Amino acid sequence: MAISTKPASGFRDFLPTEMRRRKRVFDVIERVYNAFGFERIDTPCVERLDTLLGKYGEEGDQLIFKILQRGDKLERALQGEQVRDIDLADAGLRYDLTVPLARVYAQYRNDLPRYFKRYQIAPVWRADRPQRGRFREFYQCDVDVVGSSSMAVEAEVTAALATILKELGFLDVRIHVNHRRVLQALMQVSQISDAKEADALIAIDKLDKIGRDGVVNELKSRGIADDSVATLMGILDGFVAPGTDGFSNEAVLAHLEGALASSDQGLSAIADLRSLLSFASGGPAASLLCLDPYLARGLSYYTGPIFEVRSDAFPGSLGGGGRYDGLIGMFMKEDVPACGFSLGVERLLVLMEESGMFTDEVSDVDVLVTLWGAETTAASLALAHELRAKGVRVDVYPDHDKYGKQFKYADSRRIPYVVLMGPDEVSAQTVTLKHLGTGQQQSFPRSDAAAAIVAAISKG
Amino acid sequence: MAISTKPASGFRDFLPTEMRRRKRVFDVIERVYNAFGFERIDTPCVERLDTLLGKYGEEGDQLIFKILQRGDKLERALQGEQVRDIDLADAGLRYDLTVPLARVYAQYRNDLPRYFKRYQIAPVWRADRPQRGRFREFYQCDVDVVGSSSMAVEAEVTAALATILKELGFLDVRIHVNHRRVLQALMQVSQISDAKEADALIAIDKLDKIGRDGVVNELKSRGIADDSVATLMGILDGFVAPGTDGFSNEAVLAHLEGALASSDQGLSAIADLRSLLSFASGGPAASLLCLDPYLARGLSYYTGPIFEVRSDAFPGSLGGGGRYDGLIGMFMKEDVPACGFSLGVERLLVLMEESGMFTDEVSDVDVLVTLWGAETTAASLALAHELRAKGVRVDVYPDHDKYGKQFKYADSRRIPYVVLMGPDEVSAQTVTLKHLGTGQQQSFPRSDAAAAIVAAISKG
Repeated sequence: MAISTKPASGFRDFLPTEMRRRKRVFDVIERVYNAFGFERIDTPCVERLDTLLGKYGEEGDQLIFKILQRGDKLERALQGEQVRDIDLADAGLRYDLTVPLARVYAQYRNDLPRYFKRYQIAPVWRADRPQRGRFREFYQCDVDVVGSSSMAVEAEVTAALATILKELGFLDVRIHVNHRRVLQALMQVSQISDAKEADALIAIDKLDKIGRDGVVNELKSRGIADDSVATLMGILDGFVAPGTDGFSNEAVLAHLEGALASSDQGLSAIADLRSLLSFASGGPAASLLCLDPYLARGLSYYTGPIFEVRSDAFPGSLGGGGRYDGLIGMFMKEDVPACGFSLGVERLLVLMEESGMFTDEVSDVDVLVTLWGAETTAASLALAHELRAKGVRVDVYPDHDKYGKQFKYADSRRIPYVVLMGPDEVSAQTVTLKHLGTGQQQSFPRSDAAAAIVAAISKG
Repeated sequence: MAISTKPASGFRDFLPTEMRRRKRVFDVIERVYNAFGFERIDTPCVERLDTLLGKYGEEGDQLIFKILQRGDKLERALQGEQVRDIDLADAGLRYDLTVPLARVYAQYRNDLPRYFKRYQIAPVWRADRPQRGRFREFYQCDVDVVGSSSMAVEAEVTAALATILKELGFLDVRIHVNHRRVLQALMQVSQISDAKEADALIAIDKLDKIGRDGVVNELKSRGIADDSVATLMGILDGFVAPGTDGFSNEAVLAHLEGALASSDQGLSAIADLRSLLSFASGGPAASLLCLDPYLARGLSYYTGPIFEVRSDAFPGSLGGGGRYDGLIGMFMKEDVPACGFSLGVERLLVLMEESGMFTDEVSDVDVLVTLWGAETTAASLALAHELRAKGVRVDVYPDHDKYGKQFKYADSRRIPYVVLMGPDEVSAQTVTLKHLGTGQQQSFPRSDAAAAIVAAISKG
């Protein structure tokens, strides 16, 4: 039976064109995070199962790829009376970058700066059923600040995010902002019990998809009392949606202040949002931040502001984040304030590809040095090295084929120029440069050839 | 029981300082390979077991990390009469980057250029017993040219290698070169049978460690006849070792030509080596290439020239490679010529660290913008953004602590400058820049502050 040479189901090979695009995006992210004082870390792809299990809910635990025990440990596990999969594995592939951050912070906190501003760009693995656009191995791109409760952190994280989106060419985006305690206060003043809070949040988060009437129906079908639904919708109806006429952050804040006047936690959350908007006012996120009291994001671990990047040009979210003061301390039995953002980098790559945003791609090789024969090869390679020393990216055709075949190879790699050094050139001590697109040729004295070629190709 | 927050045994966390060093090395490698016309690819960390197994020998197969089946598949496996580990897993972590290259080449060859010049810098996993300097997850850094039998490929691969080593600061290195068929011809003229070839090669490869007498004893104890040992050592004794007085590649070639005159394969191998040295003569590897007939490298898959980078400053090898025309076609049932090199990047990193070669490290942040209080925070953040727009890397202290505490944080991150914008500065419309090392302060008008700060810090 022939072995399949496709990657395993749910996994991807990245050939050179795709790698260049990924590198371009990762480089922007890296440069911007560095400019904001964030530092990159990396953690192992493999973590102990006791680090991973119990952190992602039952469903998450099921999706962790576990690594089979080996040797004696496996023997013993298989000889047990009842073999459970937990006996067969004690390590697994990382599921996200947040649990590793919490482990790293607990392990090295004494060596880390007072504020740990880290980012990590790395693959994670989830044993999801593969489907279009969903893979079992994909990159996450997380930035987090650990150690401060100041809204200056939220302002900086969203400013970095805004800078990245702009540099990648995502000009028509918004950063939707809400606050976990605004949502809790809304529940409180609508007399929705803690037990029903999650149900209610799921319903209102769907406004985009199912509309106002849909939200009302879903709230009722999830057992929220009619009075509570009426109160809640009465408040929510007062908001203008981000991206529509008449929207202003100040109007949202004013309406919230009225509606939540009786709730201390509501008012403290509004104060946080006012600080965040004020701190961000002179920076790149100022025009992107939109208060959105409907924004809930499913994740129960947020404790403060929450963010989500959206664009009218594309459905869904381009990434999300927020403040989660109870998570980083999971391995230390104490709370450590933290705020971060996870950019949906695989999604961004797909959108950039589909929207033709990788337009200005050029060859990654400037010149192909052709080979004439064995007797001129050393001279051709020497010229290639001279060019590289001047910063030119040079491929060398390795065999002594006819020029036509060599030009075809250059074409297949989209290399714009070829250099010819046949016996005529060698005896005349010249070098010929040919532009494959126009067919135009120029000859230069060998002694001056590298500098002349650099000058010619930089003119285009 | 408290959960350990160390990484799993044999795995490593990389904190910011280590990440910067790794990035610096990877960036050099990437830039040089790009300058030579190589293109980066990536492949999944997880491969099907039928892709991996049987490629690395029995011992290698044992070291592959296997991924536990899940759900129904696991159920069925556990209910089998006899549970074998092969039933429990159908995928594993990649063991090297060569088998994935062979799979990629077989899968996409119709879309690839006639010569596929790829590199890959990526982690691989081996379930070795962890020990000092040996990890279960480590990066490999492979460059290969698929599709040509020309010695121009060997010349280019070694030239790229020489450039990388030089740029990293490894000035005192040699690239030892031998040829698989030179070794085979040596066996032939010494009347050592094919069955004993591997034994004999293991013995002569140990010259560095056990000396000439040791090699003779080992040859004899491995059952090589006394006559054969005498003939073989008679030839080998005629070579001057690379790095010692009197060594010259021409002398090695002349001696080989005499000793192997009766062997066609020996003479064809010598012709290859002459071509390689000639093609490389005008390039960066010329002074590094040293013919070394003792060099065997354990790997039986080499078919032509073989390389190993060595330095008198460090024991052992910094990387190795060669021509292997029978391997890339493993999934295609045909031979495809290929030549490549695997740089020992984890070893290089350790040596650079231990030898103090990371000397010119500076902070990765230029300026810390301090915060005075809530009322000045927006102005401070706005200045931070102005500086970043001018290419300055800026961290912002997030809380409103005393300046002393803020300076201490800057020190802990080795940030040389702080910017002060307190109420005095805001009302006077100025900004203060302070160099923490000298204590020197300068004030600038707010309107001109970003440009003035850029000018001040670029003067040092």
